[in-house]
Amino acid sequence: EVTLINPFHVPKAHEQDVLERWEKARDFLAEQPGYISTTLHRSIQPNSQFHYINVAKWESECDFKSAISAMNKSLPPLNISEVEFYPALYEVIRN
Amino acid sequence: EVTLINPFHVPKAHEQDVLERWEKARDFLAEQPGYISTTLHRSIQPNSQFHYINVAKWESECDFKSAISAMNKSLPPLNISEVEFYPALYEVIRN
Repeated sequence: EVTLINPFHVPKAHEQDVLERWEKARDFLAEQPGYISTTLHRSIQPNSQFHYINVAKWESECDFKSAISAMNKSLPPLNISEVEFYPALYEVIRN
Repeated sequence: EVTLINPFHVPKAHEQDVLERWEKARDFLAEQPGYISTTLHRSIQPNSQFHYINVAKWESECDFKSAISAMNKSLPPLNISEVEFYPALYEVIRN
């Protein structure tokens, strides 16, 4: 099991577009092999470094990469240059 | 319910110290009112923006802040200047 954690910045004017795109991506990814869950978090503090952070669980790194590859062929890219993403894959090391 | 998400950088030489300090903080915080859970993630990719990300759930922002205040009075601070933390509180907006 791996966890994708993706902190991102969205300019206020593009928030609605980005959320709609996020929902389309989630709906696509949720149908792919190895998908477990996803949770989108929004900051409750005005000055946080990242206003949004997505946390998604997948059965394996391979499943995740295959799903993203399939999504990139199927969904049009998000063409908003001011959106900054910092996605990476993690393993749980302590609870 | 609120989610603390804390991405952080640790220089390789200080990883063990920081993990030991994290465990002490977790043991203290887990005894405080409103604590739900905590999960420490480590990147499985070498070039990720954040090597560690902690995700913790609390009953409320007030419980979390009281617990941190109590911890700061009880545990000695982590005196490693190269460690960079970006903690913020989040709400779940989509699943």
